[in-house]
Amino acid sequence: MNSDPIKKQAWEKFEKRKKIKFINSLSGFKSANLVGTVDENSVVNLSIVSSFFHLGSDPALVGFVIRPDVSPRHTLDNIRKNKKCTLNHVNSNIYQKAHQTSARYDKEKSEFLECGLTEEYLNDFLAPFVKESTIKMSLEIQNEILIEENGTHLLIGKIKDVYLPDIIVSEDGYIDIEKAQSVCVSSLDSYHLTKRITRLSYAKPEQQLTEIDL
Amino acid sequence: MNSDPIKKQAWEKFEKRKKIKFINSLSGFKSANLVGTVDENSVVNLSIVSSFFHLGSDPALVGFVIRPDVSPRHTLDNIRKNKKCTLNHVNSNIYQKAHQTSARYDKEKSEFLECGLTEEYLNDFLAPFVKESTIKMSLEIQNEILIEENGTHLLIGKIKDVYLPDIIVSEDGYIDIEKAQSVCVSSLDSYHLTKRITRLSYAKPEQQLTEIDL
Repeated sequence: MNSDPIKKQAWEKFEKRKKIKFINSLSGFKSANLVGTVDENSVVNLSIVSSFFHLGSDPALVGFVIRPDVSPRHTLDNIRKNKKCTLNHVNSNIYQKAHQTSARYDKEKSEFLECGLTEEYLNDFLAPFVKESTIKMSLEIQNEILIEENGTHLLIGKIKDVYLPDIIVSEDGYIDIEKAQSVCVSSLDSYHLTKRITRLSYAKPEQQLTEIDL
Repeated sequence: MNSDPIKKQAWEKFEKRKKIKFINSLSGFKSANLVGTVDENSVVNLSIVSSFFHLGSDPALVGFVIRPDVSPRHTLDNIRKNKKCTLNHVNSNIYQKAHQTSARYDKEKSEFLECGLTEEYLNDFLAPFVKESTIKMSLEIQNEILIEENGTHLLIGKIKDVYLPDIIVSEDGYIDIEKAQSVCVSSLDSYHLTKRITRLSYAKPEQQLTEIDL
């Protein structure tokens, strides 16, 4: 396929919703996770978030972005109060329910109830997990950074307990998230299953890569 | 599949490399992009980066993380000097070459040359694009934020020109990155093709989701 130029001058003139879908497609595939939180009155909240990224493994940190002006605003309110949330992988059995959590429900409504997902409480952690999710973990929020360029909020979470089936963890630590049917997202609304090509060995100069068996 | 607990106490005792692969798997699927930069002596650099995330569409911003202690350190040096880089999607034809860019080459070596990828210069932009990449764009770096929790650097880039085949852009702005064979990554070293399940309509309370045709 040849790559045609769409210069800045061209895509900047797209109408608002078209531009949102176009720009959202550009960074590539995204993780699909549900963030569970709870407020001081025990009202729970659940939001789909596609901006989670690995930040480091020691300490074990993830980052994610919350826009204050859209649906996960209750998530941000709750996290600011108790610094706790859960991260739950969206899988192919629940992607429609997960997508529905992005609707603008009133604060007193539980997205678990409205979208047909089940609250689960594990190891005395304050925030709710998603029972239907196969890979999930508790996070303690360490920091919130305001991104001045557009008023979004970057949250940094420390990974605490992790819940997943033993059989998908390889000897070397690799987790076969494909086997757990975790999905990925592109643009705003497109859900994808994956098909592994291969794992590749650690790259060194002047050395041929080899494939790693699972 | 049942989810077994791997409590903090357990995974924290994994040996270092096992912990890296385990924790890197947890956030879910990641984008796979090559970042092209150039230094003041016209020495080019190319690094695979899996931490790109969408930050906003107006202004059009992406974020990504660079660890100063590993391979993309030359990327960080170059970006600090001229605030410019290119973002190039890794596709299934070049994923091995893209992975090889993570080897620790000396600064004067070009990863393009060492890994068998082709430099391309478009619209007078200073930094090199990857000719073999089907979806690519120029970025101007707006800001660098030190993540104090682990000493990594979050870079915020503004999207300028975008190059991609016209035929993969839908009427509504959605880009079919699957058709361009863009891959995603899990953990450190696992490359995946995708298979779209569907696109879903904008979610509203009390309204059934519908599927969107491409």
